[in-house]
Amino acid sequence: STLYRKLQGVLGNDWIFLVLLGLTMALVSWSMDYTSAKSLQAYKWMHGELRGNVLIQYLAWVVYPMVLVMFASLFCNIVAPQAIGSGIPELKTILRGVVLKEYLTLKAFVAKVIGLTAGLGSGMPVGKENPCGYTDILTVGCAVGVGCCFGTPLGGVLFSIEVTSTYFAVRNYWRGYFAATFSAFIFRVLSVWNKDAVTITALFRTNFRMDFPFDLQELPAFAIIGISCGFLGAFFVYLNRQVVLVMRRQTALTRFLTKHRLIYPGAVTFVIATLTFPPGFGQFMAGELMPRECINSLFDNFTWTKLSATALPPGLGRSSAWLHPDVSVFLILLLFFVMKFWMSAVSTTMPIPSGAFMPVFILGAAFGRLVGEIMATLFPNGILFDGIVYRILPGGYAVIGAAALTGAVTHTVSTAVICFELTGQISHILPMMVAVILANMVAQGLQPSLYDSIIQVKK
Amino acid sequence: STLYRKLQGVLGNDWIFLVLLGLTMALVSWSMDYTSAKSLQAYKWMHGELRGNVLIQYLAWVVYPMVLVMFASLFCNIVAPQAIGSGIPELKTILRGVVLKEYLTLKAFVAKVIGLTAGLGSGMPVGKENPCGYTDILTVGCAVGVGCCFGTPLGGVLFSIEVTSTYFAVRNYWRGYFAATFSAFIFRVLSVWNKDAVTITALFRTNFRMDFPFDLQELPAFAIIGISCGFLGAFFVYLNRQVVLVMRRQTALTRFLTKHRLIYPGAVTFVIATLTFPPGFGQFMAGELMPRECINSLFDNFTWTKLSATALPPGLGRSSAWLHPDVSVFLILLLFFVMKFWMSAVSTTMPIPSGAFMPVFILGAAFGRLVGEIMATLFPNGILFDGIVYRILPGGYAVIGAAALTGAVTHTVSTAVICFELTGQISHILPMMVAVILANMVAQGLQPSLYDSIIQVKK
Repeated sequence: STLYRKLQGVLGNDWIFLVLLGLTMALVSWSMDYTSAKSLQAYKWMHGELRGNVLIQYLAWVVYPMVLVMFASLFCNIVAPQAIGSGIPELKTILRGVVLKEYLTLKAFVAKVIGLTAGLGSGMPVGKENPCGYTDILTVGCAVGVGCCFGTPLGGVLFSIEVTSTYFAVRNYWRGYFAATFSAFIFRVLSVWNKDAVTITALFRTNFRMDFPFDLQELPAFAIIGISCGFLGAFFVYLNRQVVLVMRRQTALTRFLTKHRLIYPGAVTFVIATLTFPPGFGQFMAGELMPRECINSLFDNFTWTKLSATALPPGLGRSSAWLHPDVSVFLILLLFFVMKFWMSAVSTTMPIPSGAFMPVFILGAAFGRLVGEIMATLFPNGILFDGIVYRILPGGYAVIGAAALTGAVTHTVSTAVICFELTGQISHILPMMVAVILANMVAQGLQPSLYDSIIQVKK
Repeated sequence: STLYRKLQGVLGNDWIFLVLLGLTMALVSWSMDYTSAKSLQAYKWMHGELRGNVLIQYLAWVVYPMVLVMFASLFCNIVAPQAIGSGIPELKTILRGVVLKEYLTLKAFVAKVIGLTAGLGSGMPVGKENPCGYTDILTVGCAVGVGCCFGTPLGGVLFSIEVTSTYFAVRNYWRGYFAATFSAFIFRVLSVWNKDAVTITALFRTNFRMDFPFDLQELPAFAIIGISCGFLGAFFVYLNRQVVLVMRRQTALTRFLTKHRLIYPGAVTFVIATLTFPPGFGQFMAGELMPRECINSLFDNFTWTKLSATALPPGLGRSSAWLHPDVSVFLILLLFFVMKFWMSAVSTTMPIPSGAFMPVFILGAAFGRLVGEIMATLFPNGILFDGIVYRILPGGYAVIGAAALTGAVTHTVSTAVICFELTGQISHILPMMVAVILANMVAQGLQPSLYDSIIQVKK
């Protein structure tokens, strides 16, 4: 019929392809999430069961991620070395017209999926932003990949546009939107059916009050978060590049490491796992929390400085990891931020498929939470304006920090969109956009984006 | 310093210009809103005061908007005839490389602002989407204009990109985002300081429960809304064009109307105002509600079919206009939709500055609400799934309908973003995106977008 033919004209001839792409990515992404979540569960279960014997407990805590990371590294090295890294720098290079041989092959895709699953299942600060792209509609593939990781279709499309292109066809925006929505939908439905999540709305659902989420007088604090995140983001990019450059220099050590490829990821994992060992130093930096638990707890609706570690309120859940009986919550947050900062910068240089988005997101959330808790201490009764008391919401500060730092590191403003899709609450949109813009202004003036930095280094 | 010079490089040399653009648009847009709101207030006050005498009441109800619309028409005809219409079709033409003489002048801008304010203050179904553009960064101007109308910076940017361009520079996305955020922020702050609004978050804030906003089994209903809105949107564009074409044909009537330019807008306003007269036929179509009150009440959190007109719950507010003691709420909604449908299609052809976005938005909300109320009657106890009872939220259906119908008429998917920025709730994002995509698929197969249709007719 005419309608059908016209529909075909509108969508190009590829809408069936877009549906299939969305479906495949959703299934792959969900399987990866499922497997890595099970792996983390086993990791934590093992740690819990071995509570009696600290030495064996420590060995298990360190060896488990080492095995997984070294397996990921080995597997990629053998099957498809081009699968190493986040994929976005490669995509950007391809879109600029450079032909990267064998980058877009099925072999590389399989290596990426297996390697990422193992990496994510190790609990190391590595993220997943796996763009599965095909030559013709690379940006669409990227959009679907990013959108599907977080269940944020719209943010995924915008982020991939910003990250990969300089000029952009509006037609592709439409196609990306279509495929990403379909994909995110399937992804969420799978989660509900698997009883991981009760609803199909948001991944890290926040629960801030909607009536008076923040006051204008809090804006300077949000601006400070934005500007600080700009500097921190630029420093993250700098640090990441320096690590790569040091490893690249020809010394006896690097020659040794190049020969024995598994030593470097193994050593990095060993150091990181040792430092986060919960009965050891990990107790001062919420080391027992896996990445997703970090985000969930940093976005929670409590004010930690008002809680005491002895009488915890019900419903606090995993957030109790941040409350130490002897150490102030500020110090825990600060230690977490400083330690995870270099850990993330180092672990994203390991030769496994990994992205920096999620680790940076967590860093930003921790920084925002720190500022929020400080504000809550400075104004314990909230801010009075015009007869209404605005209580400080540290969780809201964490959301803003997460958006600002990821924005600064990737040089995008769409992270604000990803953030409110992730949290399912749009109440902080204006301060978030202000913070993201400020962070971008500072970071763009100081350093290239993380992806451009990787491209430069790899040249 | 280096940082400053680098910042300049990032933003081009025009960031001061962007700030000024955002500031100006916010001030202008806010003044327009303020003036037209006061005008509507005076209109309703007059109607209330004259309650004793139906004849005088009727005269006041009809003459007041007639005077305003005819003034707007006369003013634009004298000062700058190019200010008539919504502006987006003209912008689109300019961006395609056609030079429209004198379109972007100060005179036209003043005519547009005055004409729009008068039109909005008349309570007629006309909207405002005034892109104030300047040659170099037209799209940015458009983004700021649209974003500022609704206080939706992000949706404004995306909408203007989709509507005006085929290819666009990511750089402009950044600039649009910057200017629109600044503008929306000033706009919201002005509203708070004027005590119109208590917070600076969302314009038509909804208050749906976040926990279980909808169930997967409601999805067919959302899909039906999407597909129906596709057909309805295409029919709206068709009807609007037919009205223009009939008026264009050379008959005795049209020659007469061309000679006496004020007759046409006057007659249209007369007919519409007569039909909406609250003590008359208006009681069956919530005629007393001004456009913004319509949206607020259609998005409310009650289930109207469960209320009786005799015992209204507190907090219902203006929504009581939809409850008639003798007539079912379904009939009222249906009448409202049918009557406002042709009224909106006709009144956007009046020779005054006006947009169709807001009227179509209201139509979509009414349609969605109708479906929602039907669903609430079919499933009075909600849908039971997996031990959780999902109560039907007719207000959520209204939001989805509004996004789908505006998406269908304008051929954009960004209306979903505008919608959740407007309501401040992202809980319905997935069904909304599905409905908007379906509406677009149907509407794009049947008719050009409203703006393209206007361009074709004006040729």
